[in-house]
Order: sequence, then C-alpha cells, then structure tokens
Amino acid sequence: MSNIYVAIMAGGVGTRFWPSSTSSKPKQFLDILGTGKSLLRSTYERFLNLTPKENIYIVTNRDYINLVSDDIPEISEEQILAEPSRNNTAPCIAYTSFKLMALNSNANLVIAPSDHLILNENLFIETIKEGLNFTKKNDALVTLGIQPTRPDIGYGYIQFEKSQYPHKVLKFTEKPQLDIARSMVESGNYLWNAGIFICKASDMVKAFKLYSTEIFDLLNQPEIYNSPLEKRFLEEKYPLTPNISVDYAIMEKAPNVYTIPGAFGWSDLGTWASLHSEMEKTKEGNGMSHPQIFLENVQNSLIKLPNKITGVIRGLENFLVILDNDTLLIWPKDQEQEIKSLVNSLKEKIPSHKI
Amino acid sequence: MSNIYVAIMAGGVGTRFWPSSTSSKPKQFLDILGTGKSLLRSTYERFLNLTPKENIYIVTNRDYINLVSDDIPEISEEQILAEPSRNNTAPCIAYTSFKLMALNSNANLVIAPSDHLILNENLFIETIKEGLNFTKKNDALVTLGIQPTRPDIGYGYIQFEKSQYPHKVLKFTEKPQLDIARSMVESGNYLWNAGIFICKASDMVKAFKLYSTEIFDLLNQPEIYNSPLEKRFLEEKYPLTPNISVDYAIMEKAPNVYTIPGAFGWSDLGTWASLHSEMEKTKEGNGMSHPQIFLENVQNSLIKLPNKITGVIRGLENFLVILDNDTLLIWPKDQEQEIKSLVNSLKEKIPSHKI
Repeated sequence: MSNIYVAIMAGGVGTRFWPSSTSSKPKQFLDILGTGKSLLRSTYERFLNLTPKENIYIVTNRDYINLVSDDIPEISEEQILAEPSRNNTAPCIAYTSFKLMALNSNANLVIAPSDHLILNENLFIETIKEGLNFTKKNDALVTLGIQPTRPDIGYGYIQFEKSQYPHKVLKFTEKPQLDIARSMVESGNYLWNAGIFICKASDMVKAFKLYSTEIFDLLNQPEIYNSPLEKRFLEEKYPLTPNISVDYAIMEKAPNVYTIPGAFGWSDLGTWASLHSEMEKTKEGNGMSHPQIFLENVQNSLIKLPNKITGVIRGLENFLVILDNDTLLIWPKDQEQEIKSLVNSLKEKIPSHKI
Repeated sequence: MSNIYVAIMAGGVGTRFWPSSTSSKPKQFLDILGTGKSLLRSTYERFLNLTPKENIYIVTNRDYINLVSDDIPEISEEQILAEPSRNNTAPCIAYTSFKLMALNSNANLVIAPSDHLILNENLFIETIKEGLNFTKKNDALVTLGIQPTRPDIGYGYIQFEKSQYPHKVLKFTEKPQLDIARSMVESGNYLWNAGIFICKASDMVKAFKLYSTEIFDLLNQPEIYNSPLEKRFLEEKYPLTPNISVDYAIMEKAPNVYTIPGAFGWSDLGTWASLHSEMEKTKEGNGMSHPQIFLENVQNSLIKLPNKITGVIRGLENFLVILDNDTLLIWPKDQEQEIKSLVNSLKEKIPSHKI
C-alpha cells in the first residue's frame, strides 16, 4: 500500500462563477472548462497518476456528499470526508491530517483544491513528487509556488530564500495593493501561493499542536478517527473550531515551510475573467462556449451560453455574457468583484435556487 | 346582416422582431406587447366593436392557416382567406375585394394590418366609422392618416388637401430621407400612412380595373368566388399576379383617394425600437418584459427575457437584449436594420426553425 495520499478540498460554497455556480451546486462540481468533466473530477483524475484511487480522499461540506459521490462514483463512502460546518481551510486540513495519520502513521500527503486549472499535468505530477520526496525525509510543510506572470492583486505571494532548494519560505503576503504586487513581481523573489500543500500527515498534526492549539485540542483524539464514533465526534467538535485559513493558522507561523516553484500552467480560476484569460479565444479576444455564437464588433469578452442557445451579439467590449441556471448575466468583465454584492442585495428577490 | 366587413391582413413573414418573430411563427401571431394576446387576436377583438365576428375575415399565407385558426378558433374556415403565394398587398387586397363583393355587393370594407398597435381603441373605431360613412355614400378609397410626432424615415407620408374633409390625398411619399421627412413634419401638411384602408369592395375592384389591369384581369371571375372552384382558381391565378404593394398599384394612381386623420395612438410596431418607444419604461428609459430583470447603469434599452429567466445586467446604453426561440440577441438599438442582413448571412449556420 502506498504511503502517498491525496486530500482534495471540495467544500467551497461557490460565490464566484455566478450564475453558473450556486450554493446548491458550486463551481467545483461544474464543467467550467467545457471538457466534459467537472473541475473536481478533473482534479481527481489528475491525481490518479500519482497514487491509487483508494488513497484519494475528498473533503467537502456534508451538503455536497451526494454531489461528490455522483461525480466520482468509483471511490468509497469512507473516502469522502464531510465537514459538519464551514470553518475555512485550517480545521479542514487538521481534520484530514488527524484522520490520515490515524490510518497510516507514514501518510505523506498532498492537499489540493478541487477547482484549479492545471495545464501541464505531467509537470504538475513531477513537481508534486519532488515535494513528496522532500517531505518524506523531512519535517517540512511544502507549498507549491507559481511564477507570477502579472501583478495580480487577488493572489497570495510567497517570498522565498533563493539559495536553497526546496526554497525556504521567508514571508507570505496576502492580496497586496497593486503597486506592491508590481514591485514583488519585478523583484523576482516572489511566487504566487497556489494553495497546494505537501507534508506528512503527522508533521501537519505536529504543526497544529505548536501553532494552532485551539484546533489541535478540539480534534486531538486519534483513536476516534476511522472508528464508528468519528462522525458524532466531528459533529460535536468541528463546529467549535475557529474559522481560519491554514495560511494564517499554520503557514505564516511555522518555521519549516518550504516552496517548490512549478511552471505547470496554473490558475485558481477564481473569476470569470481568469477563465477568460486561460481559455481559447478568437483573434478579437473573445472566448465562447460553443460555435453557435456570432459576434460583430465584440472584443475581449466571454460568452457562455447553453449549447442549444444561439448567440447573435454586436457592440460589446470587455463583457461577460453568461446564461446559466435560468439567469442571464451581462456585466463588464473588469467589474466582476461587484457581482457578488449585487446578488447578495437581490437575495430576497431572486429565487433561492439561482443563488 | 351588416354591410360592414373587415379584412385583417396577416400574411407577413416576420423578418422583423427577430429572434422572437420567425418565418414559422411571425410577429402577428406573437404576444409582442405582453398583453396575453397575439397582435392578430388583439386586432380581431378590436374590430368586434365595429361589426359581428361573421363579417371579419383574415387574409393570410396558406402556411399560416393553422396559426390563425388556433388563435381565433371562433371564426369559420371560410373566413380565413389563404394566399397561395406571397405577392405583397395589391393582389391580396384585390382578391379580398373580389371575394367580398361577390358575397355582398354592398360590402363596405375595412382593410387593416394584423400587427399594429392602437392605444385608443374607441377613438380608432370612431374614426373607422367616419370613414365607412363616407365610403358608403362615395366612390372613395380612404386611407387613415396619423399625425406625425417625429421625422420617422421608415414610414410613408401623405400630403393632403386641408380645405376639404375627408381630405383629398395629393401625394404619397415612401420612406423619405431624414431632411425631407423633417421638413414634411414641420410643414403640417403631411400625415403618416397607416396602411389602414376603407372603401366599398366594389370601388376597390373598380380601381383595380382602372389602375392595375394585370391583377384585375387575372382575378376577374366573379362567379368563382365563394364557390367550390375558388381554391383551385386561386392556386392557378394568384401566383401569376405581380408582386406589388397596393400603394404603388392603386393609391398613388387613383384620383379618389382620401385620408382621415386619426389621433388614436398608433404604431406599426415595425421594429424593436418602435416597441421600446411605445412600452412602459423605467425613469432610465428601460423597457423590460418582467420584473425579474435587475439593471445597473443601463439606459434606454429593451430587455425581453422569458419569464423564467432572471436578468442581471450592468453597463449597456441603447441596447436590445432579447432571448427568445433559443436565441440570444444583444444588439445596439439604433443598428436594428442590420440584424436582418446578418441573420440572412447566417442562414446556413443557424438552425432553420430559429429564422
């Protein structure tokens, strides 16, 4: 049995990619890229090149258990970890690490989001293997770093020590101002934080013991995991954990954090605009969901319509046109961050299944 | 039995109001105004205030007979006149006049399009009655005139003799240049030609005999009408008639053409823009098909979505956004005349039922 485990985090609530993504079926369960597979399923299949399917776990909110098992019917019920509440990534990763450590004390673990785009899958797996080799032999928490290609203010930045490899992480900077992002990118000393972590489960548990005592104390009952009592224990304790990201809870505090740069072509697909920038486009810069969309004097826009809908559009620049879940969104692409607040303000006016 | 007859022309092919209007179900069969009734049905019901339903005839293309009888099930099969080919309004009106004259030699006839908007229905009927009183006693062809409210270049203009009433028509001008339209409107001597005609059927037949001999000769077989032979006769002769409008064939030539101005609130609903200008709008000038459409920084636009589709739209000015027949049109409102040529150019790419 391999010691290599993968935990795919698939509990996100889907406030982005609206109206395609809704809280009842968030982004990770959608075929955002038009590949015929959900982002979760693509992530799962990618990791089959790393470890047998029995070693791949999906961590999700309990509301989405059925969506996960529908999407990946070949994994067992035990491989779907259900969070009883939404408490951000730190409790999620603590729970996963406790459970896999109890299952296999040598578990060497990859923790990855379910909804990212990876263009070069071979290189991705090679990079992961490099990290696993390192963490197998060292008490280290590795986070994959992406070479920045633009001063994106939506990402976290990793400052790293160039002289050693894997690089020691010097500092994390979350979502910087544009001028700061610009100088960080120009300096060459920063990588984007992809949120893909590699470490032994036991080393992650140890890190929680040292740097996030509250979560550690709540979940530290090793004999309970993988037993019939796990579910009830979790339902009682998990909701009491603080709502905090693993970056704040662990990564920014632990001294043994390392990064391996990966040039495998990555996007967190955090916005429609990021999908637009990754997808195939016409020479006018338009990305379209299918060929029955006819554009005149349209530039740099993303047009996503159901296959049966013909589109005839003239005179838009830098727009999103999305028809999904019986909702038509027409919105300036560079004002995407304001969709969420508008939709929140409409919560009592729009049918709840559309949000 | 009343001598007052109505012939509603409902054979139009529906190249406007695309994508709602298609050749398989053109504009007149659609509830364009959101009243719960098609334009044809609204026109029919309007004329019930003038004459019993037995005296109301619908002239349509034979492809649309079922659409007519579905829409107005209470009229008999004999009241639906089927054109075997599309030959414009002159042959259509000649056929109708021959047929109704054969039915009732005193038939006093209103010929009206099926797809216009009339705001003040009482005043409309009063104006029609005035015309019928005049044509009952005179060999006159009356066309209703509308007081122009703007220099519209899509309409025909009627120059009229002010000193007598009903006014003698001096000259017709079809779709003038903008500067000419402007000076015509300013002069006060012109009305829009609404295409609503009033005359005795026998006087119209006489006019065809005098001014449109080719059509008259082809259709002049009075004993055939309303007999079992009518259908075959029509199938043979009608397609041989020239494709010409009644304006060119008769009205511009006959000396006995009169106009009665009507201030009943009229639009030919010839374009989406004309619908927009007639419909109820927000203070930003937006017309919407239902309340589940949320607009931000949108002005002077027409948004027409199926009821089940929620709309969330920002940053459009002077646009049409129409989702119908599985087609989404987003188009600058003032470039509407170019939709038709685009759609024609796409004929081999778009499924035929959508055109």
